[in-house]
Amino acid sequence: MAHFQHSHRAMNEFDLIKNHFAPLAKDFSGSLNLTDDAAIITPPVGCDLVVTKDAMCEGVHFIGHEDAALIAQKLLRVNLSDLAAMGATPLAYLLSLQLPKNTTSDWIKRFANGLLRDQNTFSIHLAGGDTTSNLGPLSCSITAFGTVKTGNALKRSGAKIGDSIYVSGTLGDSALGLKCLLEKHSNPFLEDRYFLPQPRMELGTSLVGIASSAMDISDGLIQDVGHICTASNVGAIIHRELLPLSKAAASMVKNDPNLWEAIYAGGDDYELLFTASDPITINGITRIGEIVSGADVLLKDYENIIAVTRKGFAHF
Amino acid sequence: MAHFQHSHRAMNEFDLIKNHFAPLAKDFSGSLNLTDDAAIITPPVGCDLVVTKDAMCEGVHFIGHEDAALIAQKLLRVNLSDLAAMGATPLAYLLSLQLPKNTTSDWIKRFANGLLRDQNTFSIHLAGGDTTSNLGPLSCSITAFGTVKTGNALKRSGAKIGDSIYVSGTLGDSALGLKCLLEKHSNPFLEDRYFLPQPRMELGTSLVGIASSAMDISDGLIQDVGHICTASNVGAIIHRELLPLSKAAASMVKNDPNLWEAIYAGGDDYELLFTASDPITINGITRIGEIVSGADVLLKDYENIIAVTRKGFAHF
Repeated sequence: MAHFQHSHRAMNEFDLIKNHFAPLAKDFSGSLNLTDDAAIITPPVGCDLVVTKDAMCEGVHFIGHEDAALIAQKLLRVNLSDLAAMGATPLAYLLSLQLPKNTTSDWIKRFANGLLRDQNTFSIHLAGGDTTSNLGPLSCSITAFGTVKTGNALKRSGAKIGDSIYVSGTLGDSALGLKCLLEKHSNPFLEDRYFLPQPRMELGTSLVGIASSAMDISDGLIQDVGHICTASNVGAIIHRELLPLSKAAASMVKNDPNLWEAIYAGGDDYELLFTASDPITINGITRIGEIVSGADVLLKDYENIIAVTRKGFAHF
Repeated sequence: MAHFQHSHRAMNEFDLIKNHFAPLAKDFSGSLNLTDDAAIITPPVGCDLVVTKDAMCEGVHFIGHEDAALIAQKLLRVNLSDLAAMGATPLAYLLSLQLPKNTTSDWIKRFANGLLRDQNTFSIHLAGGDTTSNLGPLSCSITAFGTVKTGNALKRSGAKIGDSIYVSGTLGDSALGLKCLLEKHSNPFLEDRYFLPQPRMELGTSLVGIASSAMDISDGLIQDVGHICTASNVGAIIHRELLPLSKAAASMVKNDPNLWEAIYAGGDDYELLFTASDPITINGITRIGEIVSGADVLLKDYENIIAVTRKGFAHF
């Protein structure tokens, strides 16, 4: 594209791709070694291709002074989490980087190293993308592709009255980790949960044919339960006393009960939220409520109804 | 995601999607009405899925005060041009918008209207995406999907010594249009060529099985011929006197021969560049040179060799 504002970098886009990104694509033939205009991504016969796209902006979704490897890994993982929520197995991804002018090649190298690490962990390959310069802060996005047996993708729309509601892992760690970071109360466990979400790939694929609805928790538990209810035309009751907390989160909430909000509305959890009609016994999941008639999401603490004042993002 | 900086908008992300973007997705079942974490995009049996991703940033790829509809259309069209370059037929796309805090719902409505107009023109549908707030200028990207018969996608790597080199349309209009815009010499034809590239979808599909290599011209003719040469391990000779110019571009170049650079290095043309061993007679294409041995791209004016000083972007 013709750039009408463009500062020459020490390293141009083509060198950058060749040096740092082509190695990430070498094992995926559809990437055409990143030399073409587009990639070829065709699911195996009998499979649907599940596609998701998530962006992260400096100052909004990450602070900016994190290690570039961590930013790359989080970007990939939030997209992988969307694939897990659909019951899909990772296949490939496209990367888009909008880089401020002062980006160094060392930063890019560390970013690429972060991707490489997670490519190996999650068996996914770079298939293409683009890099451009940007007048504003760094912005990056990934489009991730996964495969699932034709017609078997998990969706938000299948929850039925009487189904149980489950979540994976523990809730609120990420939101509390960010709070610790911003307030400079060091808590490595919670901060790690903020920096490096754990997409629940195996759980996602194992829920195919079992869960009646599924999604990942990115906007906060209550809001995301609301998304399932809207898509499924049902209501839900969530029992706060059943919510799974890490030791670190439980300790913070005990000291300051206002922090409960970070647990059920903090977001950035990237745990799976799903419903099922039959009891499920899988390690690492917790039953937290049930689907009911109506359209509302009710949060209860034993028999007391809790007024949910903020359903969305956590604003510390 | 938990946003640690986030200003409440009059219109939140969910309303925005429902009001303006869900109508763009209603005719594509794999979009799941934009209510899920991911979309399902599966090519028909016997077809490969071609995937491309291009981003545009305010102040870099567009000025910012353009009509939002034009920005949306250009974003979609630069991606469609990549599909055309692979010989693919458009299927669906994902949209990612990183919006500054002061973005109005009217701006978003006009942006969506631009997409709707081009969806109808190019038979493509919105399948998913994401919107986030952004501390910097507006940034947007599209991932576009097209289909092509299995194994038949056009690539950059098939050019052979002795092949002719062709381009579609006319060259340099967009770069000269941007120059007119920035220098406030009104030239509606050239400016329109800058704002609204014409992806050569029909030509692209008609070249399948005919062209030995193909790509679209986005970085400038000479640089892009170089990409084909690198991928194909060949050299090329381009004859400047054969380059197809619009009347408006020919007139500007006649007045100021320095502007030749905008023709062969300006970029943003989104015309197809391709090679073929047999003579091709399709309306609207021009033979501009030939593939030779070696690795260099030589630009000649009749028998004189022209020193190509800038192979990349045009910087006015």
